[in-house]
Amino acid sequence: MAAKTDANCIFCKIIAGQIPSLKLYDSEKTYAFLDIGPISEGHALVIPKHHGAKLHDIPDEHLTELLPVAKKIAIATGAEQYNILQNNGRMAHQMVDHVHFHVIPKPDEKQGLGVGWPGTQPAKEELAKIHERIKGRLEKL
Amino acid sequence: MAAKTDANCIFCKIIAGQIPSLKLYDSEKTYAFLDIGPISEGHALVIPKHHGAKLHDIPDEHLTELLPVAKKIAIATGAEQYNILQNNGRMAHQMVDHVHFHVIPKPDEKQGLGVGWPGTQPAKEELAKIHERIKGRLEKL
Repeated sequence: MAAKTDANCIFCKIIAGQIPSLKLYDSEKTYAFLDIGPISEGHALVIPKHHGAKLHDIPDEHLTELLPVAKKIAIATGAEQYNILQNNGRMAHQMVDHVHFHVIPKPDEKQGLGVGWPGTQPAKEELAKIHERIKGRLEKL
Repeated sequence: MAAKTDANCIFCKIIAGQIPSLKLYDSEKTYAFLDIGPISEGHALVIPKHHGAKLHDIPDEHLTELLPVAKKIAIATGAEQYNILQNNGRMAHQMVDHVHFHVIPKPDEKQGLGVGWPGTQPAKEELAKIHERIKGRLEKL
């Protein structure tokens, strides 16, 4: 399936070369470039050429190459520690509505991704209920 | 290539069924289950069966299925907003040394992933230098 594009999307414009970018990778289905507002040195974005706002909008065939490319870029940054992050929705910190995977080196405590982790310890029975519900939906996909 | 395993790894033990888990997906190369210390309801982990501590330790062929599976699970959680996160290294908030992708629903401001974003605005020349360095390394990979 050919990549869908959106004429109003800033990332589709970058892919098309209508907006310049510091390109790192470019294949039939995948594009990668440096983030111009980096949260650490080497912070890059890996995106499917297929336009879609959220992960669940992207066909599987346009997802398979993203992690191999993110891996290559992570290695090329030279980072020993790093985060791979993909946000879906404004509340989840997504700012551009075209799926993008952040590759974010973590050189020290201050730079890179800050992770807030409000961990919980639900009862076994509660987890089992959630498990059944999600499994039930998965079986219908 | 067959998946490499590590007899001392808690996630390899989960894959092998030696430690129970609330399984959501199980194929030749990929396994998924609910996180037992969730930061939001439906918080799940998607892992390659191939053992490796960090993303760059996993062969490409064991990476390609991870996002299609994470997508399915994100849909099955029913979340409208969610984060996909993979941490590499203790400072980057990795707690188990077997690559895992968190699928984390973001139902409200309090639950789910907290994102700290120390954004910067480097000069064009500075970004260009970083770009050249990373591109140079990418060409050798």
